[in-house]
Amino acid sequence: MPENEQTTPRLRDLGITIGTLPTGTHNAVTDVPGVRIGHSTIVEGDAVRTGVTAVHPLEGSAFSEMPPAAIQILNGAGEITGRSQVDEYGLLESPILITNTLSVGTAHRGCIEWMRQQEPTLGPIHFSIPVVAETYDGFLNDIGGQHVTIEHVFDALDSATGGPVAEGNVGGGTGMMLFGFKGGIGTSSRLVTVEDREYTVGVLVQGNFGIREHLLVDGVPVGREITDLRLFRAPQQEMPARDGSIIVVIATDAPLSDRQLARLCRRGMLGLGQVGSTATHGSGDLLVAFSNAPECRVNRFDTSAVLTTPRLDDRRLDPFFQATVEAIAESVLNALVAAEDMTGRDGNRAHALPHDRLREIMRKYGRL
Amino acid sequence: MPENEQTTPRLRDLGITIGTLPTGTHNAVTDVPGVRIGHSTIVEGDAVRTGVTAVHPLEGSAFSEMPPAAIQILNGAGEITGRSQVDEYGLLESPILITNTLSVGTAHRGCIEWMRQQEPTLGPIHFSIPVVAETYDGFLNDIGGQHVTIEHVFDALDSATGGPVAEGNVGGGTGMMLFGFKGGIGTSSRLVTVEDREYTVGVLVQGNFGIREHLLVDGVPVGREITDLRLFRAPQQEMPARDGSIIVVIATDAPLSDRQLARLCRRGMLGLGQVGSTATHGSGDLLVAFSNAPECRVNRFDTSAVLTTPRLDDRRLDPFFQATVEAIAESVLNALVAAEDMTGRDGNRAHALPHDRLREIMRKYGRL
Amino acid sequence: MPENEQTTPRLRDLGITIGTLPTGTHNAVTDVPGVRIGHSTIVEGDAVRTGVTAVHPLEGSAFSEMPPAAIQILNGAGEITGRSQVDEYGLLESPILITNTLSVGTAHRGCIEWMRQQEPTLGPIHFSIPVVAETYDGFLNDIGGQHVTIEHVFDALDSATGGPVAEGNVGGGTGMMLFGFKGGIGTSSRLVTVEDREYTVGVLVQGNFGIREHLLVDGVPVGREITDLRLFRAPQQEMPARDGSIIVVIATDAPLSDRQLARLCRRGMLGLGQVGSTATHGSGDLLVAFSNAPECRVNRFDTSAVLTTPRLDDRRLDPFFQATVEAIAESVLNALVAAEDMTGRDGNRAHALPHDRLREIMRKYGRL
Amino acid sequence: MPENEQTTPRLRDLGITIGTLPTGTHNAVTDVPGVRIGHSTIVEGDAVRTGVTAVHPLEGSAFSEMPPAAIQILNGAGEITGRSQVDEYGLLESPILITNTLSVGTAHRGCIEWMRQQEPTLGPIHFSIPVVAETYDGFLNDIGGQHVTIEHVFDALDSATGGPVAEGNVGGGTGMMLFGFKGGIGTSSRLVTVEDREYTVGVLVQGNFGIREHLLVDGVPVGREITDLRLFRAPQQEMPARDGSIIVVIATDAPLSDRQLARLCRRGMLGLGQVGSTATHGSGDLLVAFSNAPECRVNRFDTSAVLTTPRLDDRRLDPFFQATVEAIAESVLNALVAAEDMTGRDGNRAHALPHDRLREIMRKYGRL
Repeated sequence: MPENEQTTPRLRDLGITIGTLPTGTHNAVTDVPGVRIGHSTIVEGDAVRTGVTAVHPLEGSAFSEMPPAAIQILNGAGEITGRSQVDEYGLLESPILITNTLSVGTAHRGCIEWMRQQEPTLGPIHFSIPVVAETYDGFLNDIGGQHVTIEHVFDALDSATGGPVAEGNVGGGTGMMLFGFKGGIGTSSRLVTVEDREYTVGVLVQGNFGIREHLLVDGVPVGREITDLRLFRAPQQEMPARDGSIIVVIATDAPLSDRQLARLCRRGMLGLGQVGSTATHGSGDLLVAFSNAPECRVNRFDTSAVLTTPRLDDRRLDPFFQATVEAIAESVLNALVAAEDMTGRDGNRAHALPHDRLREIMRKYGRL
Repeated sequence: MPENEQTTPRLRDLGITIGTLPTGTHNAVTDVPGVRIGHSTIVEGDAVRTGVTAVHPLEGSAFSEMPPAAIQILNGAGEITGRSQVDEYGLLESPILITNTLSVGTAHRGCIEWMRQQEPTLGPIHFSIPVVAETYDGFLNDIGGQHVTIEHVFDALDSATGGPVAEGNVGGGTGMMLFGFKGGIGTSSRLVTVEDREYTVGVLVQGNFGIREHLLVDGVPVGREITDLRLFRAPQQEMPARDGSIIVVIATDAPLSDRQLARLCRRGMLGLGQVGSTATHGSGDLLVAFSNAPECRVNRFDTSAVLTTPRLDDRRLDPFFQATVEAIAESVLNALVAAEDMTGRDGNRAHALPHDRLREIMRKYGRL
Repeated sequence: MPENEQTTPRLRDLGITIGTLPTGTHNAVTDVPGVRIGHSTIVEGDAVRTGVTAVHPLEGSAFSEMPPAAIQILNGAGEITGRSQVDEYGLLESPILITNTLSVGTAHRGCIEWMRQQEPTLGPIHFSIPVVAETYDGFLNDIGGQHVTIEHVFDALDSATGGPVAEGNVGGGTGMMLFGFKGGIGTSSRLVTVEDREYTVGVLVQGNFGIREHLLVDGVPVGREITDLRLFRAPQQEMPARDGSIIVVIATDAPLSDRQLARLCRRGMLGLGQVGSTATHGSGDLLVAFSNAPECRVNRFDTSAVLTTPRLDDRRLDPFFQATVEAIAESVLNALVAAEDMTGRDGNRAHALPHDRLREIMRKYGRL
Repeated sequence: MPENEQTTPRLRDLGITIGTLPTGTHNAVTDVPGVRIGHSTIVEGDAVRTGVTAVHPLEGSAFSEMPPAAIQILNGAGEITGRSQVDEYGLLESPILITNTLSVGTAHRGCIEWMRQQEPTLGPIHFSIPVVAETYDGFLNDIGGQHVTIEHVFDALDSATGGPVAEGNVGGGTGMMLFGFKGGIGTSSRLVTVEDREYTVGVLVQGNFGIREHLLVDGVPVGREITDLRLFRAPQQEMPARDGSIIVVIATDAPLSDRQLARLCRRGMLGLGQVGSTATHGSGDLLVAFSNAPECRVNRFDTSAVLTTPRLDDRRLDPFFQATVEAIAESVLNALVAAEDMTGRDGNRAHALPHDRLREIMRKYGRL
């Protein structure tokens, strides 16, 4: 079975729905045509629990056909490379890679090498500034061991497909945690119709944040209701100093400018607020958004002086803001629902959120 | 009875509590020692429904003893003057005024004139850049009529006191709306203890935003449950194009630097997300924060070369982030609970949120 | 003779040229078709030396046809209102007004009232956030006396014309100073050709900054060569604490997006660096740029869902960057050359830069 | 002879001085006590012309004793990692590495591995986000060949010393170009006295930008005077699409906060403007500043709740702004003067700026 296939349950399988907008076919970031996701999951022995997740923003080469993009930082305790250039040009020019904190360099190098295979001019004539983001998996993973290799990066990039997206303990999310439960990769999507034209907003998160007591599921204080199932930490071991992070990738096929995509990113905090984030000090809450609408891309090899591109009138954006908020909240909860118990380095252990207890609590609060 | 006295009910009077941190004495921004609030409420005839709210950040003169401050913009469709200088210096040097969109000029001029009465050097030797913010009350108020005068500005500044703070249809909040109900001014506070030292985070909002269906009270979808009590708009009248805004003032006596205060501001989106904001296109979601800890202020007339000021270690900020999120959410809900039905220009009308139905819905969702 | 007519000499009249790009017809911001400038100059008795300058960005109403725009802050010790909304929407929706520091409120109020005369929907249906900027003229002007009235604001807005632009001691620049000489309003323009299509970049500055020793004219250290002609300050008087500021307005008819206009603004520092700015602590170095290309504007009353607008490919921007740098540097020097000796409040006095000595120094350094 | 020793001539050796402030002992960034610079220069065969430069911000470990820091972007067409965290925390927590565009990943990985050797808790308990910056050397260097290895990174970090700093074709600057001449590494410093206390501002640049015609030396249009000595490009070869970049590191021992250090960075544009930068589209003009004043650092392992740190009053910063402007301009010119002719990949060639002609031009313009 190929890795990138949905086999874990999802929030909606438990009867829980976030928001009111309809989802795309797969309720996944890949509902945006052309977006492809690849995971390289690295689980070896007792201590290696990490990986890489690759996001191809469009069906061809983002190096050649650069989509409008924006990066916004809600709390900056993390890394997302490429930010200065995305700010300046309003364009993405590489796939997006997500991995662990100490493997940013390897993912960056791997991305350059992979792109050079496709693009012979990268180096002697052109250059590219890749977008690589990270969260910290050092509680479950031997992060100092640098187990992500360039081959894993190639594997994530080469195996990427559309359709259903594997969630939970996969790719860059392999060793991540959410609200003191096991976390990881999650995804969701929403459809927005503007004058008979249907657009998709898709979100993928690598979720690794949250304080147990703050967890909200559709407004229900689930975290306060589940006081057991805490992280198990090996005796005599110091707790990692970092309390979490989340990388959010927002994709759309709606024609939006880089300024408008930045507006979408800034709604990320609203979505995270709805699941109970307080954006703690050590959390890198980093968002990147792109529009792969073909008519909005900039062709690197086109020498026309004037580009004429469409964009939605800003006064039409409210449903896209709502879609972004809903899809981010549901992506985090999908990561939480998909993730499975994991024991990692030194016997450290994180529990999955138990589905039956979640349903029971939702019933108690009048939601099921 | 002086205007600035609490006579309207509050969220906690209905048995509803937001979050888990304790509040200050008055559950108001004035729990931060030295902070004083003044309202000038202007209700005249059928069409004038507006006002000014003044926030004195400390007991003396902010012109002389400038407190560390920060301004952050979540959605910029509004005005907060003084932002460039607050960014550059990290200091506030005036009271903060909040009024309607078209009265920013009058409030600015009034603030300068009021400060000149206190500070003879303002003008010939020194200058000051005041902080004036606004939301739009043109649905209920004849906003084009410019009914705010310099006297109203002086009145708000001069009448300011500590202690309980009037909420709802008062001051700058007089003609404002929230989630399709009547809105206005709201306030709340939280206490944070760090190594036996207790600090206060106080919030005041002028709330004028929100889509009915999105309203959440402690996670309960109250807006979806109350489908009647809509705004009444006079026949043949066009609806105002602006859908809302919120001004948030965050005060604390904890020793925090301007960078740290900006971090507090950025948590505002989380608090707004918890009550159901999607930060719509036309919403000016603007936040200003200051610390009036005496040892953090900069004295304008002191010529020492080196300032030595304390600040909390950033790793101690998480409870302050939580306090900010909770106090913002509760301030918005306090504004909603305090506001009363209002009929304004052309017979336009907004209903108050009915308290009995709110309690009934909270019971239905297992919260009361 | 109408006020807005060029009667003072200019840098090029002295044989000095900045940069290599050609200028427009008038070497003025008004070379950008549609841009109109109006000055209201207020000189009364011994102590009133101030005014207002108005910039209409296009031939019609910026309220109805909003041009792409950007604001950038190089040193934020000053005020430019409207910044948050320009950031968020990337649009200008009012004329731009420039006045003294304490008259921002009056100019703001005046702008709203003037616009309401043109736009009956402003207030009941629409709102507008004007752009008002300032520099400090308290050395020569009785700034605390608030001598700018709403009538002066109307006068500047109503008298605006295209063609030659009065420079030096006019409008908002009346009481301003540059490098310890008299300063004020200056303007310049450059032409850029892209594939046979000619575009104009025009600049207008209200210049009020600089340390004598730092003044550079085309790289020549003129400030170090003129050690006399210092400001005369009345005995026993304290010097104002603020050391300067500059407001820069950049206009173009090239099709540029708000992101690209922000890039132009950021080149402002390069132009200021070339005349010797060190952007001192108290200097508000604030820039606003707009493109009034008709096909780039957003019509407020148009309800189309999709806007299709042209923009130059970013890789074509380098000559625009150079044009901006050159035109800013020349605008500052034009203000300096046009300004005339002025005695103001309490007998304080600023000298004009003497043209003969400037020419002599340029000769000494091999430039004439 | 150790690599990091000054053997090439400097601007002042030619009798040319920039600005008026005094320099430190070595007129180098290392005049700031504790700052150490290491170069790994990689010149192999006909085509390898690259390297790595390391900046240690203080004598001990920046991981343990984090100095206040800021990053600012003047034109963002480049990479500087770590920016989000430096923005959020206002602290640096690693050495700074500068290399070529495609070696950012290797330098990042190398930095992490080097730090892990010093800091056993990096990984299992703590994490670190390194600062790695780049400019593009693909005209002279086989940049796609990835000739920078982790060993080179270690070499640069381990060989770092105080004292004189090698300039020109060394370290990360090995294959870089300035104004169509050979460029590379340059450094300079200035002393500022505040109330009898002397502070140092030191700058190091990796300079790789500029259009020949724009080059200014102390205001003299040297670039327009030297029209020959152009880059030689191998026949049939396409010119690289990127036109330059500059990385600026600003160090000081003055007690400055992160906000104040950002103010220093923003003066970078003024210094670059004085040597003729127009900040072209493809230029990554990125600046990082830090203060290593011991009393301003944050100790990672200290658990005190309150930090009490000094900073200079902002009103004392003007000489620091001037020092920064002067030292940046002189650093760029030092890089230009130190660099030597270089032939690289495919026979591409860049000439050094000829010293005799520079002196001759300066004489012609009355400067020598």
